[in-house]
This record gives sequence, structure tokens and C-alpha cells, in this order.
Amino acid sequence: MAEKGPITSPLGDSERDITAKSLQGTLVDLVDLHLVAKQAHWNVVGSDFRSVHLQLDELVSSAREFADSVAERAAAIGASPDARANTVAESSGVPEFESGWRRDSDVIAAMVEVLDKLIRRLRARIDETDKTDQVTQDLLISIAAKLEEAHWMWQAKTL
Amino acid sequence: MAEKGPITSPLGDSERDITAKSLQGTLVDLVDLHLVAKQAHWNVVGSDFRSVHLQLDELVSSAREFADSVAERAAAIGASPDARANTVAESSGVPEFESGWRRDSDVIAAMVEVLDKLIRRLRARIDETDKTDQVTQDLLISIAAKLEEAHWMWQAKTL
Amino acid sequence: MAEKGPITSPLGDSERDITAKSLQGTLVDLVDLHLVAKQAHWNVVGSDFRSVHLQLDELVSSAREFADSVAERAAAIGASPDARANTVAESSGVPEFESGWRRDSDVIAAMVEVLDKLIRRLRARIDETDKTDQVTQDLLISIAAKLEEAHWMWQAKTL
Amino acid sequence: MAEKGPITSPLGDSERDITAKSLQGTLVDLVDLHLVAKQAHWNVVGSDFRSVHLQLDELVSSAREFADSVAERAAAIGASPDARANTVAESSGVPEFESGWRRDSDVIAAMVEVLDKLIRRLRARIDETDKTDQVTQDLLISIAAKLEEAHWMWQAKTL
Amino acid sequence: MAEKGPITSPLGDSERDITAKSLQGTLVDLVDLHLVAKQAHWNVVGSDFRSVHLQLDELVSSAREFADSVAERAAAIGASPDARANTVAESSGVPEFESGWRRDSDVIAAMVEVLDKLIRRLRARIDETDKTDQVTQDLLISIAAKLEEAHWMWQAKTL
Amino acid sequence: MAEKGPITSPLGDSERDITAKSLQGTLVDLVDLHLVAKQAHWNVVGSDFRSVHLQLDELVSSAREFADSVAERAAAIGASPDARANTVAESSGVPEFESGWRRDSDVIAAMVEVLDKLIRRLRARIDETDKTDQVTQDLLISIAAKLEEAHWMWQAKTL
Amino acid sequence: MAEKGPITSPLGDSERDITAKSLQGTLVDLVDLHLVAKQAHWNVVGSDFRSVHLQLDELVSSAREFADSVAERAAAIGASPDARANTVAESSGVPEFESGWRRDSDVIAAMVEVLDKLIRRLRARIDETDKTDQVTQDLLISIAAKLEEAHWMWQAKTL
Amino acid sequence: MAEKGPITSPLGDSERDITAKSLQGTLVDLVDLHLVAKQAHWNVVGSDFRSVHLQLDELVSSAREFADSVAERAAAIGASPDARANTVAESSGVPEFESGWRRDSDVIAAMVEVLDKLIRRLRARIDETDKTDQVTQDLLISIAAKLEEAHWMWQAKTL
Amino acid sequence: MAEKGPITSPLGDSERDITAKSLQGTLVDLVDLHLVAKQAHWNVVGSDFRSVHLQLDELVSSAREFADSVAERAAAIGASPDARANTVAESSGVPEFESGWRRDSDVIAAMVEVLDKLIRRLRARIDETDKTDQVTQDLLISIAAKLEEAHWMWQAKTL
Amino acid sequence: MAEKGPITSPLGDSERDITAKSLQGTLVDLVDLHLVAKQAHWNVVGSDFRSVHLQLDELVSSAREFADSVAERAAAIGASPDARANTVAESSGVPEFESGWRRDSDVIAAMVEVLDKLIRRLRARIDETDKTDQVTQDLLISIAAKLEEAHWMWQAKTL
Amino acid sequence: MAEKGPITSPLGDSERDITAKSLQGTLVDLVDLHLVAKQAHWNVVGSDFRSVHLQLDELVSSAREFADSVAERAAAIGASPDARANTVAESSGVPEFESGWRRDSDVIAAMVEVLDKLIRRLRARIDETDKTDQVTQDLLISIAAKLEEAHWMWQAKTL
Amino acid sequence: MAEKGPITSPLGDSERDITAKSLQGTLVDLVDLHLVAKQAHWNVVGSDFRSVHLQLDELVSSAREFADSVAERAAAIGASPDARANTVAESSGVPEFESGWRRDSDVIAAMVEVLDKLIRRLRARIDETDKTDQVTQDLLISIAAKLEEAHWMWQAKTL
Repeated sequence: MAEKGPITSPLGDSERDITAKSLQGTLVDLVDLHLVAKQAHWNVVGSDFRSVHLQLDELVSSAREFADSVAERAAAIGASPDARANTVAESSGVPEFESGWRRDSDVIAAMVEVLDKLIRRLRARIDETDKTDQVTQDLLISIAAKLEEAHWMWQAKTL
Repeated sequence: MAEKGPITSPLGDSERDITAKSLQGTLVDLVDLHLVAKQAHWNVVGSDFRSVHLQLDELVSSAREFADSVAERAAAIGASPDARANTVAESSGVPEFESGWRRDSDVIAAMVEVLDKLIRRLRARIDETDKTDQVTQDLLISIAAKLEEAHWMWQAKTL
Repeated sequence: MAEKGPITSPLGDSERDITAKSLQGTLVDLVDLHLVAKQAHWNVVGSDFRSVHLQLDELVSSAREFADSVAERAAAIGASPDARANTVAESSGVPEFESGWRRDSDVIAAMVEVLDKLIRRLRARIDETDKTDQVTQDLLISIAAKLEEAHWMWQAKTL
Repeated sequence: MAEKGPITSPLGDSERDITAKSLQGTLVDLVDLHLVAKQAHWNVVGSDFRSVHLQLDELVSSAREFADSVAERAAAIGASPDARANTVAESSGVPEFESGWRRDSDVIAAMVEVLDKLIRRLRARIDETDKTDQVTQDLLISIAAKLEEAHWMWQAKTL
Repeated sequence: MAEKGPITSPLGDSERDITAKSLQGTLVDLVDLHLVAKQAHWNVVGSDFRSVHLQLDELVSSAREFADSVAERAAAIGASPDARANTVAESSGVPEFESGWRRDSDVIAAMVEVLDKLIRRLRARIDETDKTDQVTQDLLISIAAKLEEAHWMWQAKTL
Repeated sequence: MAEKGPITSPLGDSERDITAKSLQGTLVDLVDLHLVAKQAHWNVVGSDFRSVHLQLDELVSSAREFADSVAERAAAIGASPDARANTVAESSGVPEFESGWRRDSDVIAAMVEVLDKLIRRLRARIDETDKTDQVTQDLLISIAAKLEEAHWMWQAKTL
Repeated sequence: MAEKGPITSPLGDSERDITAKSLQGTLVDLVDLHLVAKQAHWNVVGSDFRSVHLQLDELVSSAREFADSVAERAAAIGASPDARANTVAESSGVPEFESGWRRDSDVIAAMVEVLDKLIRRLRARIDETDKTDQVTQDLLISIAAKLEEAHWMWQAKTL
Repeated sequence: MAEKGPITSPLGDSERDITAKSLQGTLVDLVDLHLVAKQAHWNVVGSDFRSVHLQLDELVSSAREFADSVAERAAAIGASPDARANTVAESSGVPEFESGWRRDSDVIAAMVEVLDKLIRRLRARIDETDKTDQVTQDLLISIAAKLEEAHWMWQAKTL
Repeated sequence: MAEKGPITSPLGDSERDITAKSLQGTLVDLVDLHLVAKQAHWNVVGSDFRSVHLQLDELVSSAREFADSVAERAAAIGASPDARANTVAESSGVPEFESGWRRDSDVIAAMVEVLDKLIRRLRARIDETDKTDQVTQDLLISIAAKLEEAHWMWQAKTL
Repeated sequence: MAEKGPITSPLGDSERDITAKSLQGTLVDLVDLHLVAKQAHWNVVGSDFRSVHLQLDELVSSAREFADSVAERAAAIGASPDARANTVAESSGVPEFESGWRRDSDVIAAMVEVLDKLIRRLRARIDETDKTDQVTQDLLISIAAKLEEAHWMWQAKTL
Repeated sequence: MAEKGPITSPLGDSERDITAKSLQGTLVDLVDLHLVAKQAHWNVVGSDFRSVHLQLDELVSSAREFADSVAERAAAIGASPDARANTVAESSGVPEFESGWRRDSDVIAAMVEVLDKLIRRLRARIDETDKTDQVTQDLLISIAAKLEEAHWMWQAKTL
Repeated sequence: MAEKGPITSPLGDSERDITAKSLQGTLVDLVDLHLVAKQAHWNVVGSDFRSVHLQLDELVSSAREFADSVAERAAAIGASPDARANTVAESSGVPEFESGWRRDSDVIAAMVEVLDKLIRRLRARIDETDKTDQVTQDLLISIAAKLEEAHWMWQAKTL
């Protein structure tokens, strides 16, 4: 999202660059969250299969909607978003998720870890956009609210 | 999807392996199609922006639904599906899609090319599953029907 | 649908020509079925008026939806569909339906005859497309399923 | 619709005959409009494909609904409506629409011409029914309102 | 509806009185049509029970909606509508409907007769309001359209 | 509802007669309640017009639905229901409602009075059916519940 | 449902046993009613095919919903419900329904007979539960209301 | 709307000019009605606040829908509609509405006055279009029906 | 609910007082059930978190709807209902529910106990209202049906 | 389904008989699957009660819909379907399901076994109909797809 | 909410404690607002009964939804929420609401006072969370927006 | 909005005045945006007519919804909003939009310019309300998010 695109920005150049970087990072994290949650949705086994299977699809829906909002916000401030497979594979903040069938308890633990990491990265970006673009910051705050809720709901199952 | 999973299969071992390979290949193609279509959805510019933007989202919806059906069919025949970012980045049959803002006519041409390639791969898999699993073949036929319809609709715009 | 159109085909030339002919024939039959069923819907009289009037409209809906699917399938394999009034009037396989007010029992008998004839033509086309295009064959099979169900429901009223 | 049917009429014989002729003419025009709009819907190509494809289907819907209202109004005044393929092919006021693939701009021009002709015929019938049946006239006026709106929307694209 | 109410009228006094009389007469007819159709709905017996039972309820719905429109139109021109049981019993134009269980064929014949009589009364009122209030006339025309359609559908069952 | 109809009854003759009388009385009361509530709906004036106008239409809906249930229950126990205009005018328990425009406070007081009287009659019938038909009694109880709720809501406005 | 299950009951032991027996009997009757109505739905022929076919499906829906309510009520009072094929085949109160195609008039007569018998059995159970469980009795009353309505509607067709 | 636009008209020049003037006048009145009703919606105070607040929003909806229909009818007859803020401010027939918080009774009186004036203007235009365009006249009649209904409902609150 | 309110009652004074006491007790129980179920909904942890969390919200919905019905029934018989926080805290029959995070198995056991106690209290009130008000009794029976169903579903999880 | 019925068949006699046998066998299996799944739905106990209870109802829905499609397909090829309780009890391929309360883990194991057996029988029928009726085969394939998906989801819970 | 729960927090300890206190205070206020609004909903009398009754239910809905969001936000930051009846009775900021029937004007004045007090408390918490958690602050701001809107709408009725 | 209204404010006098000015300015801009977008919606011509026509109506919807939120926020802080035609004509920040038919490319360019100007004005107001009212600021931020998205979508068409 670094290149200077043809869409003009409501922000100054410096604000635009910092904001764009936060949005691009968030976009990649959310697209990968969606891929990992789908992977878990298909590969989970164990007595809690159904409950985990359904809960993962709700996370997929949230991740998809927020990814779209984030990418379109980037476009709106004049920055081209990038969420192609290679870009996601290379720059995502989501921890490695092992292939193959996975036990339900492992999946739950993995989702808590994934969400924990993404929330930290997101909170840092909320701080970074505080002075550059309140519209973007507002969007990131709403994403944090949802991911932190999801984090609690997954963690509650581990107790 | 090669490893022997704990889910038993309605198919014999050999039929199961051939079918699983077809499903895994289709899954990766569809997930990447969805990522590329979203990428184009956000980055297209030009006088036909709105029309292309909307048409791409319909393709995204189809790709998502079919990817889910394909992955769950793999699970149903006892094969663990894999659509993590790295797997997609490495094994997808979707041609490279350039980053950054893209002209509407370029996007249209790219989608025709992408669909053309995926349809060829899919038709080969329809042949491969003819003797191994009619249930899977039926699913692949329904995907071909939709992708070929989409191919016509994108190509019609280039004439 | 014989002319070579600008839309490229996923099929070889010969497969494309045979398939296109089956689709064109089916398209004309379905459009005429829809016109005849509407004609009967408006002109039926008799103590069973309401029941026949409603049942005909369900047939109209099926015929319209299938006609659309068939025509778009033709386009998707690169063949221009033709369902203009003259083409339908000249090449339809639907038997002549007399003008003017029609008794309910006559309408029922006519619909059984119409469906019987169209099903025969359709089954022949299912055979013809077996080697040329499974996607098209699948569509024709689903149409046969519906028309044979309708045939039973109309015939049941004659017993 | 000339024959004396078994359904009694709220109109006198002469009013009934004039009104029935207006309705029969309108019915044939609308059924043919629907066939031509569907033909164009399937055969249009060009950069404006999607927009024209969608706009044509809205016209198809209007034509179908109005054809049904017109035919049922004919029945309600005791006149048997006739919209079989041969009748439409022989008596429609819709200009010839060439077969095969059609450029988007040609389709647009054709639709403007078709609507222009049908509106003229319809306005004449609104005059004819002024003294014979206000209920029918009211229906024809509502059809004219819709076709004139459609005419504007197609013509606006040509400017 | 003769008394001079506190609601002012968009019409002159004479136009208002003639229009109000037409509306009051139509209101009573429609309320009674609704009561008779319900009576028949509950008391019909015979092999066509279900079909007649359902068709009567559609007539009830139409009668209720139009009665409301007619009464509110009366209010809108400053005339108090009156559809109390006594008023309906005394001034309705609906022919006597015998009490007790009724054969399906009798019910059908009765509905044809009822609708025939109400349509005549309504057409006379359409003429009367031609010079006094086009808004009211338009409403009466739309009621006639529906009642004449219903008349055809009931009569078609008698043939 | 006194005559012996062709529909057989799940009740003994004596139970059937007592129950039928309760149902017939309730039917007439509910149909008249609906007519009076509609009359008030159209003729109310005053600063509380809108609130009263809307609240009356909710009462109309309840009265219509219950009238239908009561009449169909009568039929189900083999008794022909009668709710023709004359029958309603002659045997209803609803107090006289004056014609012409009515002040909102008068309408409210009238509705409280009407409901009060109908509830008393209904409670007597609940007692009468206690030994004859629990199915009918259950229906009457559900009507009482709704009418007593409506009575409270209208009375609350008078305080 | 005789065995003492692990679910505790809000009823005393004796009340629980009597109530459970009524529920178990009703459950079997309703499941069999649903099977017979479906059987008739598929095998009916004759001029009244469509009307009978549709009316039977409404009975199927009612039977399914009530069977579920009855079985869950049994569970709620601590009695295990049993509606397996063998149990239904052995203990149902539904009269034998002949196999093969059946004339519409035969089907109608059969449904009247089936409902008549089930209503008698149900009314006996309403009496039995009067002193044991009012909650169960209330449910049985609501089933009787629906079956008696259905009985009237089927019988009305025989007259 | 006086200038000769590029959209051709189904009307002759003179009919078109008279009709266009009626439509332009109505458009401005309706847009201003919508602005004034919204202004009142936000500024009303008093014990009847909620009822008036809600009733005003229904008027806003009607005014918006009719304004759209009127403007699109103007376009359909080849006349460019004009409802920009300045045009509305200069040519509207809606009486001045005072700024600031407004008592509920004042708002009600104002709405009666506004509607009274707009109805007069509209009725004059219904006469003007009688000979020039029945399609337009029909639209104006339907607007009058709605505004006169609204006028009654507001006036009823003042009594 | 002891004080003599301005709403008149369909019951005699003694019946009204006994019934009112039953309703007031039930109201408080249901409001507290809703508060406790929400408390558990938020504080549950453990591997069964999601299932328990969702099942609790269904109980909350039932409790809210029934509380509203009970309070409005009290009003309808002229008794002022009281469900303020202090009243609930002082007079509720719901056992103490410990604060803080709660294990899923503890929550399940607690809900079984809560429902068991409320059902006992409710059944006593069903007896009390048997002679005072059948309308109220019917409402209490429907609440018992639901709470007993819920009791079974929670208890089934403990086995 | 062996007897020669009055409904004519689109198939030759031999094809019709083989196909009819496959359909009849599938019908009985599906109806029994539905009865067993409902039995389990009501009798399951254990900590996974809610999840299993809900998952079983989804299986019930699938079984009901497919049973209807299969029976109507039999009728459409001229074979009378038979799914009466006795027929199901005698010829179903579903293994015995023990009566009384059942632990959640037992229910899950039973459903895996039931589905495993039905899938084998179904796959054999898919082979049998390959040469006799592609329309029927297509239907059986779609049922296999759903049952194999269900099989995976139940088996996943056992791991 | 002071105790250290097992759910980890995205906030530091000090931020978490301050934020948790704000959320706990808001939760209690909202639950009590909901109880008081329901109390008023049932006990209001006077000519404005219906309008106040409906407006209170909208407030109840808002209060319920926000209470849920606030409690789940507390859980998400690792603090156990507490909204049991005793806690609400003891710590709510809602002023005492007198028992028994209440005049509409008294209810309106009480709601203005309640909302005024809750808004003050909420605004203080918005300040307190400014430095501790922007996600929580955002939620509190959205609650303030709604309560201040409600405050205006209730106050407007007092003028 | 300067005058001191009767609605009390949650803000201090100075904060209230600054905030009110920001809201009033935004209200006028949004109402004018809506009028201009409608004007363009009706007057656009050119090959992109349909796409622009539809995109404009989405902008109209957004503008209407936000105008309502802004005006009601003003009322909630005690400031009377003013969006009468004259006020809009005099104080709007929307650039002049030429009357008459307008080419699609001109309309697109005009919308980009209009949105660009409104966004600048809005961003200034977001700064102004930072210290005066976070609730208002939050609303303005959400409007900016939408207008900037719209700006991108219109600008993308110009490239």
C-alpha cells in the first residue's frame, strides 16, 4: 500500500502513510484469521466438534466483514490494499496452524493464541492512528471490540 | 490431503486418494479465486468501476460457497482439507494478479483468463472422478456450471 | 445457435455443436410450454377452474426458470440462443393448443399430452449430451425430473 | 378474442368488442416484448453487458406482469385471450429483432425503438377504450406509465 | 353520510354530497359482501369444499381492504361513513343468502349472483362520480376491476 | 345454529346444543364488535385521533381472528354458524353505537362499555361450556384473556 | 414409557404413570397419522388429486408438530417416549390403510374415519388426565381442537 | 423544465409543455412538503410530541415517494425536472413555516394549512392535464388521494 | 398488588385478591429467573461454555415474555403489578446465585434447582386460581409447560 | 411398489421395475432414519444433550425432505410408494435402536452406525440405477452427499 | 467485578480495574432502568396511556441490549459482571420509583429525571475510561447517544 | 440553532453552542447533498446512465439517514435544528449544480467535487467538537467514513 495511487486522500501525506500501513497490516491479519478459522472449521474432531465447528464459522463471518471494511477504508484514503495469497502468506501475524485433523481442545487453544496475538497488534495500530485518522481509528476500535469478545468466548471454554 | 485420517471413507482406498487429490486441488483454486476477486474488487478503477466492483463480489460469494462444499466433501470422504495461506500461495492454479490499482478493462481481461484456466483444471478433475466417486463428480460439475457461466459474463464485456 | 459466436467454449467444436443443438431444442420447447400453460391458465373453465388455474401457474414458473438456465448454458458454451416468437412458432415440439375457452378436463388432458411429448424429446437429448457435455446433461436431467413430476401430477387428475 | 365466450360481460356487446380488441392487441405486444427482451438479455455482448443484461430482466418482469393483468382483464369482460406462439408471431407490433450475438449499443437502440412503437399503439388503445370501459383504460394507462418510464431510461443511455 | 361534518372537504357542497352517497352505498355493499363471503366460507359443504373455502377467503380480504379505503375516502371528503350492523342490514344491495349448510355449487352460483349485482351498482356510481370527484372515481374503478375479476373466476367454475 | 347439520359431532347431542349456542352467541358479539370498532376507527375526531384510530384497528384484528376461530369451532362440532348482517343486527350483545363523527373521549368510553358487556356475556358462556366441551371452553378463555386486556388498555385512558 | 427414568417428575408417581400412558398412546397415534397421511399424499389419484394432495400435507405438518410436543411433554414429566417403527406398527390406533394407488374419494373417506377414531381416543385421554396433570390435558385439548377442525374439513368434502 | 431536452416525448409539443409545467410545480411542492414535515418532526414539543413526531414521518415518506414518481414522469415525457434547494425555496407553494421549537397544536394547525393549500394547487393541475396527458393525470389523482387522506387525519386532531 | 386500583375487575373482590397474589408472586419469580439466567449467561466458564451460554439466553427470552404476560394479566384484573428491583430482591423465590465466574457444571446444577423450586411454587398457584380465575390459570399452566420443558433439558445435561 | 399402477412411466418396463425397487428401498430407509433420529432426539441424556438434540433435528429435516422427493420420484415413474408403519417396520435397513433413555455417547455411536449402513445400501442403489434412470440416480447421489456429510459430522464427535 | 477472574485481559491491571468499575456501574444502572421502565409500562394510567406505554417498551429494548453489551464487555476484559437482583437493588443510581398505578404525566416526569441522572453518571464514566480503554469508552458513548435521545423525547412531552 | 430552547442539554452552555453550530452546518450540507443527488439522479444522461442513476440513490439514502441523525442529535443537546428550504438554499456548502439534462461524466465529476468539499467541512467540525461533545464527534466521524467511501467510489469512475 506504499505506492502513491490515483485516488486522492482526505489526509495529509504523512497521516495517509501511517494510516495506510496500519490498515494494510490489519487487512492481512484478518484475511489470514479467516483462512485459519476455516481450516479449523473443516479439520476439527472430538466430542465438542459441533460447537467448535459452529463457533468458528461466526469468527469467519466477522473476519470477512472486517477485512472488507478495512480494505475499503484503505481505498477511501487513497491507498491500494493488498490481500493476495502471497502477501498474506508472507506478512500475516497469525501463528502457524498445523495441517491435518486437529483435536477440539487443540483448536480452542490455538484460537485463543491467534486472537491474543492479533489483538496486541491491533491495539498498537489503534495508538498509531490516534493522531493520523480518527475515522480509521474508530474502525480499528470496533474490530478490537469484536476480537476481544471472541477471545473471551474461546478462553472461557478452556477453563 | 494425502495422510490417512481418522474419518472413515465410503470409498475404497484408491478411489479415496484420487478423489481427495481432485478435491484438494479444487479447494485451493477456489480459495485463491476468492482472494484474487476480492483484490480486484478493492483495486479496480475506471469508468466501469461500479459494475465490475459488484460483479466481482458475486464471484467472491460463489467461490466461498463452493470452497466450503469442496472442503466438507473432502472431510466426508475421510481426507483432511488444507487451505491455509501458505498452501494456497504455493499450489494454486490461479495466474499471478499484479498488485496496486488496476484499470477496469485489465481486471476484466484478468478474470476471463483466471476463469479459463480454472475451468480447464476443473474439467480434468471431473474426468478423474468419473470412476472414483460420483458424488464428488456431481459437485465438481455444479462448480463448472457456475464458473463457465461467470466466464461467459466476463468475456461478454470484452467484446 | 449454429453460427460460430464470439464467446469461446470450454468444449471442442463437435461437442459444442451437438450440445448447442440440444440446448436450443430444449429452449424452444420450454418457452412454448410456458406460452401454452399461460394460455390454458387464462382460458380454462369448468368446476375445477381454480385448481387447474393455480397448477398451471406453477408449471409456468418452472418453464420460465428452466428456459433461462438453458439459454444461459447455451451462451456459456459459446452458442447464441434463439427464442424469438417466430423461432418458437416454427420449431417447437409442443402440440397445437386450440384457441378459445377450454373445459378443465380438456386442459388437463392436453397438459398430459404436452408433457409426455416434451419428456420424450428431452430424454433423447440427455442421451445425446452424455458424451459431449456433462454440465449440460446435468441441467437436462434436472429439467426431466421436474417435468416428469408435473406429468404425474396432471395424469393423476385424469384417473 | 372475437368469439362470443361463455363468460358474461359487465359491458354491452359493442363496448365489449372494442375493448376486447384493445386488450388482445396489447396482450400480444407485451408477450412479444417479453420474448424479445429475454432474447436480448441472453445475446447482448459488449463492455456494458452487465448493466444491459440486468436492465432487460426488469423489463421482462414488467412485461410478464402486465401481460397477465391484460389477459385476465380480457377474461373478466368475457373475451378469450390468445397469446400462443403462432398468434404472437403473426400479430405482434414489435419490430423484427435480429438473431445471434448483439452489441450492447445495438440492443439499447433496439429497445428504444421497440418501446417507442409499442407506446404509440398503446396510446391509441387508451383513446379507443375511453368510451367503452374505464376499468380497462385505467389498466392501459398504468402500462403506458411504465413503458414510457422504461423508454426514457433506455433512451438516456443513448445520449 | 348526509349530515354536515366538521371535516372540511376539497369538493364543493354538491359534488361532496353526490360523491358521499356513492361512497356510502359502496361501503355498505362491500361490508355485506365480506359478511356473506365469510358466512359461505364457514357453511359450504361438498366435494369442492376446500377450493371454495379458500377462494372465499380471498374475496373476504379484498372486500375488507376496499371497505376500509372507501370509508376513509368518505372521511377525507368530509362525510361520516356508516357501516354499523343495522345500517348494513337495511341498506345493502347484496341479495339474501340462506342460512345453514350450503352445497358448494349453490355457494358458487350465489357468489356469481352477488358479484353481478354489486358490479352493476358500482358501475352506476362510477358514472355518478365522473363529474364530482375523479379521486373517488379512480378508487371505484379499481374496486370494479377486482370484483369483475372475481366474477369471472367464480363464473368459470359454473361452466 | 340450532338445526341438525350433516357434519357429525364429537359431542353428544345435548353437549353439542349447549356448546353451539355459546359459540353462536360469541360469534355474533365478535362480528359486531368488529363492525363497531371499524365504525369508531373511521368516525373518531379529537386531539387523540391518531392513537385511538390505531388502537381500534388492533381490536378489529383480534375480533376478526376470534370470530373466525369461533365459527370454525362451531362447524367442527357440527353446528352451522350464522353471522349474516341481519342475524348480527338482531342478536348482538353490543350496545348501540351512535352514528356520525364522535369525539375521542366518547369513543374511548364507548369501547370500555362495549368490552365490559361482552366480557360478562363471555364469562357466562365459559361457565356453560365447562361440562359440555373443554375444547370450546379453552377457546372462549383465550378470547376472554384478550378482551379483558383490551378493556384494561381502554379504561386506562379514561383515568 | 413405563420404566422409571432418570428425569425427575413434577408429578407424583401415580399421576405420572397415568399421564405418561396417555402421552405415549397419543404419540403413537400422531406418528402413525403422519405416516398414513404421507402415504395418501403420494398415492392419491382422481380429479380431486391436487386439492387432496395439498390438504394432506397440512395434516402431516400438524401431526408432526403435535407429535413433537407430546413426546417432549412425556420427557418433561420423566417418561421416556417411544415412537420407533415397530412400536408404532404394533400399538397405533390408526385403522389399516390399503397399499397402492387410491381414488381421491376413498382417501377422503379414509381420512374421516382415521380422524374420527383418533379423536375418540384423544377425548378419553383428556378425561384421564383431568386429575393427573392439567399441563398435559391442556396440550391434548389443543390437539383435539385441531383434529376436530380437520375432521370437519375432510367430512365437508364427502357431502 | 421549459427547455427542450434530448429525451423524446410521447406527447405533442403543446401537451408536453402544459404537462411538464404541472409536474414541475407538483415536484417543488412535494419536495418542500417533505422539508417542512421533517422540520416539524424535529422541532415539535408538547404532550402530543410522540404521536405528531411519528405521523410527520409518514407524511415525509409519502412526499418523498411521490416526488420521485413526479420527477421521473417529467423525465419520461422529455422534460428535465428541477428540485434544487434554490428552485424549491423560490417557487414552492408551501406556506412559510416558522423556525425554532414549535408547540404540537401549532404544528398540527400548520400541517392542515399546508396540505389544504397543496391540495388546491394539485386539483387545478389535475384539471390542466385532463386534455394533455392521462398518464400524468392519473399520477396526480393518486397524489391527491393520499394528501386528502392526510389532510383529514391532521384535521381530525384539531376537533 | 394489594391496593385497590382504579382499573375495574371482571372478577369479584375475593377472586381478584387471590388471583392477584398468585400473579404478583409469579411475576417476581420470573423477573428474578431472568436476572439469574442473564447472570449465569455472562459468568459461565468451562468446556461447555458456548452451549450453556446459548441455552441460558433462550430461558431469558421465555422468562421475559411470561413476565410481561403475567404483569399485564394482573393489570387486566385491576391489580397493580410490582417488579421493581427492591421488590424482586425481597420477595423472589429464586435461590441465591453466587457471584463471580461459575463453572458450567455448577451453572447447570443451579438452573435445575432454580427451575425445580419455581415449578413447585407455580403448581401451587395453578391450584389456587382454579376457583378464582380460569383465564389466569390458563396462563400459569402455559408457563408451567415451558418451565418443565426447560427443567428436563437442563437436567438431561446432568446425567 | 411392484404392482402395475395407472400412472404411465417415462421408462421401459424393466428399467421401471429396477428403479422402482431402488426407490422403494431408499424410501423405507429414510422414513425409518427419521423415526430413529426423532426417537434419539427425545431420549438422549448426558452432558452433550443440547448439541446432540439439535444435530438430530437437522438429520430429521433432511430425512423428511429426501423421503418426500424419493416417494414422489417413484410416483413420477409410475410406481406406487409404500411407507406405512408396517412396511417400514418390516423392510427397513436401519439397525435396531434400543428403547428408553440413552446416553449421548451411545446415541452418537448409534447414528454413525445407522448412517454407515444406509450409505452402503444407497451406494449399491446408485450403481443399480446407472443404466435404468439417470434422473433417479441423480436424486440418490444427492442423498448420498448429504448422508455422507452427516456421517462425517457424527463420526467427528467420536474421536 | 473487583475479584481477579480467570479470563485474561487485554488491558493492564490498573486500566482493567478502572474500566471494570465503570462497566459494573453502568450495567447496574441499565438493568434497573429496564426494571423501572417495565414497571411504568404496566402501571401507567391516563389519557396518554397508549403512547407512554409504547414509548416505555422502546426504552426497555434499548436498556436490555446495552446491558448485554456492557456485561459482555466486562467479561471480555476479564471482569465478572454482577447484575443480580440484590446487587441492582443496592447499587443502582436510578431514583426510587413509587409503586402502584401512576398518572401518565408523573411517569413522563419520572423518566426525564431517571434519564437525567443516568446520563450524568454515564458521562463521568466516559471521562474515566478515556485513558484506560477506548473500546469501552466507545461503547459508553453509544449508550449516551441513545439515552440523550430518549431524554429529549420524554422531555419534549413535558413542554 | 442559536436560540436557547426549552430542551435541557447534557452539555455546558459553551460546549452546547459550539456543538450545535457544527451540527447545524452538517445538517444543511447533508440535506442539500440529498437534493443535489436526487437532481442528478433524475437528470443524468449518457451511456453510463443506469449505473450512475443507481449509485446516486444510494447516496441519497445515506444523506437522508445521516441528516435525520444529525438533526435529532441537535435536538438531544437542546438545539433546534433548521433545514427549511430557505435555510438550505442560503447556508449550504454544496457547490452550485447546473439545471437541465447533464452528461454522466459531468455528474460524476460534480459528485466528486461536492463530496470533496463536504468532507473538508466535516473534518473541520470533527476537530471543533473534540473538546465539546464526544457523542456528536462520534456521529460526525461515522458520517465522514461514509462520505469518504462514497468519494472514493465516485472518483474511481473518473480514472
